[in-house]
Amino acid sequence: MAPTSETLSVQTLALLGVGMMGGSLALAARRRADVPEVRGYDADPRALDEALAAGVITRRCGSIAEAAAGADLVVVCTPVRSIPALVEEAAAAQPPPRLITDIGSTKSALVSGLSSAARARFIAGHPICGAETSGVRFARADLFDRAIYFLCPSDDSPAELHEGLHAFVTSLGARPIALGADAHDRIMALVSHVPHVLANVLMTEVGGFEASGRRAMFSVGPSFKDLTRVAGANPPMWRDIFFDNREALILSLKSVAADIMMLCENLRDGDEEAVLRGINTAASYRRELLQHEDIVLDTLYRVTVRIPDEPGVLSRVMTSLGNANINIEDLTLHHFSRAVGGDLVLFVNGEEEAASACSLAEALGYPAVVSFVGTPAG
Amino acid sequence: MAPTSETLSVQTLALLGVGMMGGSLALAARRRADVPEVRGYDADPRALDEALAAGVITRRCGSIAEAAAGADLVVVCTPVRSIPALVEEAAAAQPPPRLITDIGSTKSALVSGLSSAARARFIAGHPICGAETSGVRFARADLFDRAIYFLCPSDDSPAELHEGLHAFVTSLGARPIALGADAHDRIMALVSHVPHVLANVLMTEVGGFEASGRRAMFSVGPSFKDLTRVAGANPPMWRDIFFDNREALILSLKSVAADIMMLCENLRDGDEEAVLRGINTAASYRRELLQHEDIVLDTLYRVTVRIPDEPGVLSRVMTSLGNANINIEDLTLHHFSRAVGGDLVLFVNGEEEAASACSLAEALGYPAVVSFVGTPAG
Repeated sequence: MAPTSETLSVQTLALLGVGMMGGSLALAARRRADVPEVRGYDADPRALDEALAAGVITRRCGSIAEAAAGADLVVVCTPVRSIPALVEEAAAAQPPPRLITDIGSTKSALVSGLSSAARARFIAGHPICGAETSGVRFARADLFDRAIYFLCPSDDSPAELHEGLHAFVTSLGARPIALGADAHDRIMALVSHVPHVLANVLMTEVGGFEASGRRAMFSVGPSFKDLTRVAGANPPMWRDIFFDNREALILSLKSVAADIMMLCENLRDGDEEAVLRGINTAASYRRELLQHEDIVLDTLYRVTVRIPDEPGVLSRVMTSLGNANINIEDLTLHHFSRAVGGDLVLFVNGEEEAASACSLAEALGYPAVVSFVGTPAG
Repeated sequence: MAPTSETLSVQTLALLGVGMMGGSLALAARRRADVPEVRGYDADPRALDEALAAGVITRRCGSIAEAAAGADLVVVCTPVRSIPALVEEAAAAQPPPRLITDIGSTKSALVSGLSSAARARFIAGHPICGAETSGVRFARADLFDRAIYFLCPSDDSPAELHEGLHAFVTSLGARPIALGADAHDRIMALVSHVPHVLANVLMTEVGGFEASGRRAMFSVGPSFKDLTRVAGANPPMWRDIFFDNREALILSLKSVAADIMMLCENLRDGDEEAVLRGINTAASYRRELLQHEDIVLDTLYRVTVRIPDEPGVLSRVMTSLGNANINIEDLTLHHFSRAVGGDLVLFVNGEEEAASACSLAEALGYPAVVSFVGTPAG
């Protein structure tokens, strides 16, 4: 729809927090949405120097009030815990900005904690992309390309502001999706925060366990490696995310713990049908997820290639497969050690393609085995 | 040590169950341990035809009694649930075999359920490699190379049999490790069976959840993908493994559920220190595991490359990195869809190497970002 005189059009953007995420948003705003003025404020003056030198921002601001005053849009790009105070401070700038948003990963606590003055100018946001902290030097204009970008307007968010933010996010290259703050937080708890908790719990259980003098940690295989890849990630950041979303997280964790205890009961009772039904349910959801990604589980094969730990090995394997026009649907590496190397696990569609991939790896001198991923018939 | 006249020396090997695992063991026995006679028995006669034609076995047997009679070593290579009956039947062959072993993934229930006659001739085994089911056509002599191979002798296992099995397993290329059956099962429950349970539980929770009409499953990111890669794998096989190891599995699952509920309490109580301590513990165990694999977390960087879903793309990226002598410590792929492609996530040692990898990917036209994996200082 064409913008009305009321619809927000972003000519002046203010970033509070100029890191990788904020910097990427600024670059996308400048290069894709043609935003002429991008102001930056950061507690670390070096980040501002760097951002200005790199053309990420057009103006360096010495205070939140200076950055936010009269801006069309203020985006708060700092760790979750610091967001509410920055939103309040931005809302109090004179003249006030038209709209304030953020990119934090939890929403309910933030929205419900705001003053009514701030809430009138605020629509929460959350792009699902590259959430790890790092410097503005890693900022990039295409970070948001095709990324899901949740917007969580409250009941009293003015429609013209929501429309304007929707258009702005689209112009960055992202796909905006409107969702209530509570629904957003429940979903994020399940798909992002619970996985981190499970990875941490599993890593800790295994790390601390030994039997007959043998430590469990030194007998781990591929499934453990996949499940704990995110274990122990950025402790202070994840502590804050867990607490910020604690209501939703507690609900999900209790449900997970109940599922686990139910399985224990089924095992104790010898209820084989219930246990099988549980695994089948997981299998059918996984199948649905893969189908959503256009992958057909029924024809998916796993090719496990034992490779040494040397530069160039992955290149040789991939080149050989690429030349044979074999498409890789998924892959993961299970490293053992510098001396032993590891297993490169490739997922390939079709039994013939899998057998070819296996032969090609072998021809390079790397032992390989094929196995079927889907549920065997019967 | 030199074999004494008492020490088992394998001249006649009998396989019960000729699939990928059994076939690989047979090939390794023939080619590496120079075992002259390898007999095969399988409920599926086609598997035997195939194994004989491929030179995996030297003799096709029509019954368990025929295969086991007078053999130096019988190896039971069938799904866990069928193992006890096959061990008993092999032990009853006339003349009886000298030693029987298996390659199942759980040990206590098996050993404790055997008759004393069978137990006198049995030492349980479990190689940690390629456990997925598939046909004898995927058998390979080097499957056991450098693999951990648990041997679980009981208190009354004759030393000369244990020594002989140890030597045989070593000759296959594996690394035998003696461990009590109970300790083995507790460790396997934690490092292998619990991860499968957690993957299934998470997949099911997420698959079944929707909020405000949006399904959680369609907002998943990298951490969820890693945690659920094994979700729903081979339901009947995993049901059997869970039940076969249910005592140990229940202990581990209850401990995991208690950890989760303790985190809920800490969140509810606002105990930020306890939550941070928990994540830090996971981080330090993960660091220890990576160090065990000669990877230094303090200098590990993540390079995320957005790639289209096309053959040859991975090849181009890997070749470029290989040519630049950049070693990849770990990698994983997060597929979105055929249309969108996915993220290739590479783990690289050293900030400069990570920045180079990022530039090289970009030079190929694939957007890339770098982020730090370890705990940021301070």
